[in-house]
Amino acid sequence: MEEKAISRAVIKRLPRYYRYLGELLDNGVERISSNELSDRMQVTASQIRQDLNNFGGFGQQGYGYNVKYLYQEIGKILGLDKTYNVIIVGAGNLGQALANYVRFEKRGFRVIGMFDVNPQLIGKKVRGIEIRMLDELMDFLKEHDIQIATLTLPKNAAEEVALKLVEGGVKAIWNFAHTDLNLPKDVIVENVHLSESLMQLSYNITRHQQEKEKK
Amino acid sequence: MEEKAISRAVIKRLPRYYRYLGELLDNGVERISSNELSDRMQVTASQIRQDLNNFGGFGQQGYGYNVKYLYQEIGKILGLDKTYNVIIVGAGNLGQALANYVRFEKRGFRVIGMFDVNPQLIGKKVRGIEIRMLDELMDFLKEHDIQIATLTLPKNAAEEVALKLVEGGVKAIWNFAHTDLNLPKDVIVENVHLSESLMQLSYNITRHQQEKEKK
Repeated sequence: MEEKAISRAVIKRLPRYYRYLGELLDNGVERISSNELSDRMQVTASQIRQDLNNFGGFGQQGYGYNVKYLYQEIGKILGLDKTYNVIIVGAGNLGQALANYVRFEKRGFRVIGMFDVNPQLIGKKVRGIEIRMLDELMDFLKEHDIQIATLTLPKNAAEEVALKLVEGGVKAIWNFAHTDLNLPKDVIVENVHLSESLMQLSYNITRHQQEKEKK
Repeated sequence: MEEKAISRAVIKRLPRYYRYLGELLDNGVERISSNELSDRMQVTASQIRQDLNNFGGFGQQGYGYNVKYLYQEIGKILGLDKTYNVIIVGAGNLGQALANYVRFEKRGFRVIGMFDVNPQLIGKKVRGIEIRMLDELMDFLKEHDIQIATLTLPKNAAEEVALKLVEGGVKAIWNFAHTDLNLPKDVIVENVHLSESLMQLSYNITRHQQEKEKK
């Protein structure tokens, strides 16, 4: 594949293409035109063509896209052709919910350890994964090659734990704590700030209400 | 407050301002300059001034921003000066995690009902909220005024349940199911697609790795 600078906006849209193409594949669809994909995804066909042209040569005029090929190539771009060892720090409801997503494992994200500070959780297993106490974390990191650490713990503890993870060699953090982490530049952080998403919702409800009142 | 069209990009940033201002307020900070806020938030001071100027007159040259006033005004814009009745459909780990976030309730999002199809969950309570069976949903919607329904259930069931919610008068859905919902235009949907967030992370890991190999 040629290397090109792909805009952040396009990258943001790739997981959604990947999801739709995966569904098509599950339904036995082999080829799809940008117009059909456009109908399903509610994105304009020209946007689709423009986005997918970034990766060169997937579509053939008049024949549409080869679903499997496109699915695989986008998967490669997204790094889904590899396997990642994942740990979850914070084994409360949210941590357990993430450990239970079989879907993540199918895409190559293997949860191999869970940690918490709550002694009541010692030895409990979630989908076969044992919950360990947080003081075992550093030894665990020495013994295992961990690519991704998921932080599902209160914001007060998040940065301290994140710094330990980095000290232990972890280079990527999926952060659910309600705070921004200040970490060395070479650490990749992907934030999921649920409260910010909820505020977008209440903003839209409010605006919608205001528009209705104007009418 | 004057009405102005505020760009989507600015709106997206407001929850983060709100979070930082809330922390400042908790720490007893009364005034802050755009430069100080810039240091904390790692956003340029000019970006901050430009964003906050959208709302007119919050900042005074040389005096900085009044933290409490700004916090309240942004809260109003985000619709956080109101109370929302919320239900959670899907009372598994993720649904229970969301019901347990006291933080949401403090911001005005009151969870007053939880629903599931798993009979083992009947009558179980999460933070005082009883889990009901899904077949009670329509009656519950008749008896209560629900502004937001949270969907934390498998994607196969999501659209069917969403249509029921809409039929029952719900106008806003916080969707955690791994699917896009096709609903009437006047229904507000905010999606949290966790698998897409995880793919952004694996994309960044892969790109980072490629850059290191080039060096």
